[in-house]
Amino acid sequence: MFTKNKEESISGLGEVALIAKIRHWLGAISPNSPQGMGDDCAVVDRPKGLKQILTTDSLSYDQHFDGSISAHDAGAKLIKRNLSDIAAMGGRPGEALLNLLCGSDLRTDWLAAFFEGISHACREYELPIVGGDTSTLPNGQFTAVLSLTGYLTKPPLLRKDAQAGDTLYVTGTLGGSLLKKHHNFEPRLNEGQWLAQSMACSALMDITDGLAKDLGEIIPDECVAYLELSKIPLSDAAHQCAKASGRPAMEHAFCDGEDYELLLAVKKETQLEVFERQWRQKFPGTPLSQIGQLRKGQSKVPYIDSKTQEALPWIKGFEHLINQ
Amino acid sequence: MFTKNKEESISGLGEVALIAKIRHWLGAISPNSPQGMGDDCAVVDRPKGLKQILTTDSLSYDQHFDGSISAHDAGAKLIKRNLSDIAAMGGRPGEALLNLLCGSDLRTDWLAAFFEGISHACREYELPIVGGDTSTLPNGQFTAVLSLTGYLTKPPLLRKDAQAGDTLYVTGTLGGSLLKKHHNFEPRLNEGQWLAQSMACSALMDITDGLAKDLGEIIPDECVAYLELSKIPLSDAAHQCAKASGRPAMEHAFCDGEDYELLLAVKKETQLEVFERQWRQKFPGTPLSQIGQLRKGQSKVPYIDSKTQEALPWIKGFEHLINQ
Repeated sequence: MFTKNKEESISGLGEVALIAKIRHWLGAISPNSPQGMGDDCAVVDRPKGLKQILTTDSLSYDQHFDGSISAHDAGAKLIKRNLSDIAAMGGRPGEALLNLLCGSDLRTDWLAAFFEGISHACREYELPIVGGDTSTLPNGQFTAVLSLTGYLTKPPLLRKDAQAGDTLYVTGTLGGSLLKKHHNFEPRLNEGQWLAQSMACSALMDITDGLAKDLGEIIPDECVAYLELSKIPLSDAAHQCAKASGRPAMEHAFCDGEDYELLLAVKKETQLEVFERQWRQKFPGTPLSQIGQLRKGQSKVPYIDSKTQEALPWIKGFEHLINQ
Repeated sequence: MFTKNKEESISGLGEVALIAKIRHWLGAISPNSPQGMGDDCAVVDRPKGLKQILTTDSLSYDQHFDGSISAHDAGAKLIKRNLSDIAAMGGRPGEALLNLLCGSDLRTDWLAAFFEGISHACREYELPIVGGDTSTLPNGQFTAVLSLTGYLTKPPLLRKDAQAGDTLYVTGTLGGSLLKKHHNFEPRLNEGQWLAQSMACSALMDITDGLAKDLGEIIPDECVAYLELSKIPLSDAAHQCAKASGRPAMEHAFCDGEDYELLLAVKKETQLEVFERQWRQKFPGTPLSQIGQLRKGQSKVPYIDSKTQEALPWIKGFEHLINQ
């Protein structure tokens, strides 16, 4: 079942191709987004017009965290990264199911602190954990999987409904999350819910794999994104990382993963000044940056520097499963 | 975070104690059954009287399957063992979320066959997979986690509502599942739904950790189970295992895990002959065995041989996380 021959293993595929294959293998039992895969959550119709959303995500030792963050912060991160997917639909959290998979050599006091972090985050966001399961992995292994229900009170904000002419925004600042933010962030639940009820937004997602990769998700067919690089909100951490890596801070903002910020398109008929003023009043602590616009056009690289009119070099974010 | 000192690790706890600790650590954010942990599914009230059920379970290489079963059967097993939890509430399946966690050295053709098994089982039980996630584990590792929604059209059949005087039944035959049945079983969905609408049943669960362990779950406080050993439906595989192990076939029926049969208590006011006749008409292919009765009483070992009036020696089923 395992092989050292890369051609025969999934290591040769990369995450995007692997997911495409899985969709193909599943066939008709895997409905398309919004009812199925392809967005931050699936949207399922329930009786009496209730729209439920469903999502799942995992947190593995050595993959999503290492010994440099505390057990408490790792536990809180598991909850918050899943809530970020609920936020990215403009939804509200419902209930959680938790799977714990670990080696039996896991320290009990470490696990207690991990659950303290879970419990703390769940209280903060009013998320009950209603079920779960434990199972054994080989020594030295730890993975936790969270599955979440949530619900919508407004039509869902999908990735795929943006149009040419819409304006692109991001919340917060981008890049260098590995220094701290990847476990020290707030899921943008209130912001997402406000966007859902404002009706100004045509598309919404959270930035988890880096702007470079995620932006491609909301660009419609036969459109390109014209970006004003001077407006991209570089984080202090992006600048710090740039000093260490020798690469531009802008590249860190585009290509580092785990920002957990919102990326949104605002409908072209919206009065942007009014929209931005309302945002500032409602969320004075959450920066909102207008980073560019969607326009008709075709380009091999769909991100254009609106100043130079040249294609941007950053098109890949963080991909799992590559060349390990 | 890991330790070789058993006293400091979860290996010293065993699964039951670990889950008790997790409940303690989670505190108020973990509601009690039926709204939370403690039964085969959590039961969550939705608007307009809809009762949703939620459950999750995993399947790990070297833990729940090995190289002796095909990738196709492993995939089908993941679906069916989760559906068995839906059956154990008398519920109907809704949608599934799938997490795939594996080493990047996993063979692509093995994974394709695994998804063929998933897809086949999902078509058979009309279960759409609406979302999921992939993540990397170290080479040689494979775990899949499935989370399920379902719903009830009748009041849920819980583990905890049995009373003294109720009669105990099991479906199918027990023991020796490791030879084949652990991946070659049908979740008892139709049987569970029929039991829910029959109103004869006071408690229901599926037998996954062995009758010895699971029976304890449905015995009320200050009750014991009087069992007629001659009525325990020993599988052919239990007899085969007994020959190989030198232990009694009855011990295999009690202590082997993964039977995926239903264990139920039938209310004392029920006309058992009528109930059993209806069952045989409805499910001619599914044996139903009356194995004993719940009676008032206290005993250190709550399982009594009704012939000898002596305590039975088998009280432990399959426990994860012990002494590995």
